[in-house]
Amino acid sequence: MPAVRMKDIARDLGVSAVTVSKVLRGHPDIGQATTDRVLARVKELKYRPNLMARSLVTGRSFLVAFVVPDLVHGFFSEIAITVSTELRKHGYSILIAWTADDSEVQSSEMQHLLSVGIDAMIVATSGNDTSAFELLEERGTPYVLLDRDLHALKAPFVGGDDVLAGQLATQHLIDQGCKRIAHICGPSMSPGLRRLEGYRVAMKEAGRTVNEDYIVTPVDDGARSFQHGFEATQRLLALKPRVDGIFCFNDPLAIGSMEAIFAAGLRVPEDIAIIGCGNHPMGETLRLPLSTVDQDMKGLGEKCAKAVLALLAAPVKASTKKYILKPLLVVRKTSQRGTK
Amino acid sequence: MPAVRMKDIARDLGVSAVTVSKVLRGHPDIGQATTDRVLARVKELKYRPNLMARSLVTGRSFLVAFVVPDLVHGFFSEIAITVSTELRKHGYSILIAWTADDSEVQSSEMQHLLSVGIDAMIVATSGNDTSAFELLEERGTPYVLLDRDLHALKAPFVGGDDVLAGQLATQHLIDQGCKRIAHICGPSMSPGLRRLEGYRVAMKEAGRTVNEDYIVTPVDDGARSFQHGFEATQRLLALKPRVDGIFCFNDPLAIGSMEAIFAAGLRVPEDIAIIGCGNHPMGETLRLPLSTVDQDMKGLGEKCAKAVLALLAAPVKASTKKYILKPLLVVRKTSQRGTK
Repeated sequence: MPAVRMKDIARDLGVSAVTVSKVLRGHPDIGQATTDRVLARVKELKYRPNLMARSLVTGRSFLVAFVVPDLVHGFFSEIAITVSTELRKHGYSILIAWTADDSEVQSSEMQHLLSVGIDAMIVATSGNDTSAFELLEERGTPYVLLDRDLHALKAPFVGGDDVLAGQLATQHLIDQGCKRIAHICGPSMSPGLRRLEGYRVAMKEAGRTVNEDYIVTPVDDGARSFQHGFEATQRLLALKPRVDGIFCFNDPLAIGSMEAIFAAGLRVPEDIAIIGCGNHPMGETLRLPLSTVDQDMKGLGEKCAKAVLALLAAPVKASTKKYILKPLLVVRKTSQRGTK
Repeated sequence: MPAVRMKDIARDLGVSAVTVSKVLRGHPDIGQATTDRVLARVKELKYRPNLMARSLVTGRSFLVAFVVPDLVHGFFSEIAITVSTELRKHGYSILIAWTADDSEVQSSEMQHLLSVGIDAMIVATSGNDTSAFELLEERGTPYVLLDRDLHALKAPFVGGDDVLAGQLATQHLIDQGCKRIAHICGPSMSPGLRRLEGYRVAMKEAGRTVNEDYIVTPVDDGARSFQHGFEATQRLLALKPRVDGIFCFNDPLAIGSMEAIFAAGLRVPEDIAIIGCGNHPMGETLRLPLSTVDQDMKGLGEKCAKAVLALLAAPVKASTKKYILKPLLVVRKTSQRGTK
């Protein structure tokens, strides 16, 4: 490891050491061109700040916690990877903690993370309880809410436009000629509630009456998985008249839903069209490639990193900035009724 | 949060506070029955140790780092979840760090984690360089190697029997009547090298000559993904005589391989049978359900937790114990030639 120092980088580029330091801390008053040059040189020289010295000088740990309810379905993992890659450019590491979508586990993990002196936190919160965040506010630790919005909190939020996502998916099923469109709900947090709202908006705009029996919530109001989609679809299949389109809160639910339809001897999309949400990387390789709504996981990760760096650069200024990404309809086989 | 104390739990169960404390630290000299009773009561009362007091008394942070090369393909995420669940029972939190399968990133992440005073580390290492581990040894921080074995290191190892996994997969293709069996290799670390060895052993035992052209390595010797499987299979398809069976190092490669076969207008398994390894949770829902070798991710997570707790209970005793799990053949559609 060559002993590259911050001042070597500054001299190479003809800027001050303070500028290099500010870039590494994500300070906003350095222009994009200079930021890019410094980061490129840092990468080229494999410059690694002396952690101990850096912490002594700055009073920071250069650690950002990333607290998420799920790691298996890929959504938060993809975001974590982008956040990690982006923050690393500024000398920060992220520590990922998994909460099993349980608000008590989340509280204890957050408490534990604070005890090691992290600089900031990104939280995709479990449940609507805000008490765990009081600890962060007491300690003055800045945080960003990801995916799940809590209005009561004065923090930046990074997420998708979930009402629009619900509208796009439902409108697509209407456009495919579906007459009896069901919705399998997500957990009772902002993404689930807003996608349901989008479903209702699209139905109303198309002049459709919503049959409340066609709105089903999986038995266990926790994580949403294949099994939950399977079980909720079995309940839908017992209803008369039978539904002919299902918008599922996410792709794992949609995959489970499809399995239940196949298991009942029915066809997708001829008998029942399916659309999910999230654009799971494996959706394309499924038995029937899955129609979905893309949430731009890379964009979400980039915005998270940006929001955190902004807080770290000016931690005293409370921010409730919303970083909202536009969802995109992705039409594949499970919903294309006209083309079969 | 009720102010439950360790001594309340001890009194309730008629054991000493020292016993409760030992159970929470995973100390080995407490019997299973007592351990179970204490943990059940801890859960019932939602006892949460006072982190600060606990650290002052024990000199520990009760944090275990989990350093992994990948989070998207599900394998390490599934293991992380089990490790987290198991260690939480003993009051430990795990902090997950992602290395992008890059040994330099790994070094810097490990250094950063050490700076916050973690008690132990579980590492699925990137590359075969052992220098990053010198830091751990200097600091006396115990660690467990996961999935990727490095003989040079004096540490416990938790992983699957990869030679046997390669044998099972290859033997299965032989049993299905495949005559020209190819192997798409994994990275040049123990799992990749040992599965290749298993392929050679099975071929030899069946009296087959290995055609070295049929052993291909994806272009980029890093992470193994759909794209790599696709590209490697395109190279295999250009060879004459054409292969009729492919054992892929892992399931993501196998899915990419299948896509390349479909894209070339060929059939799976009639023209080319495919088997992967890892039993990815979505393998069953694919266009063609994927044959694979199950590695028991839950078992690997449990063994990791066990190995770490053993080190934490007796950190001075160097251990090179191997926790090796038996792989299991899972036959689905992509390799069943006789039954179509």
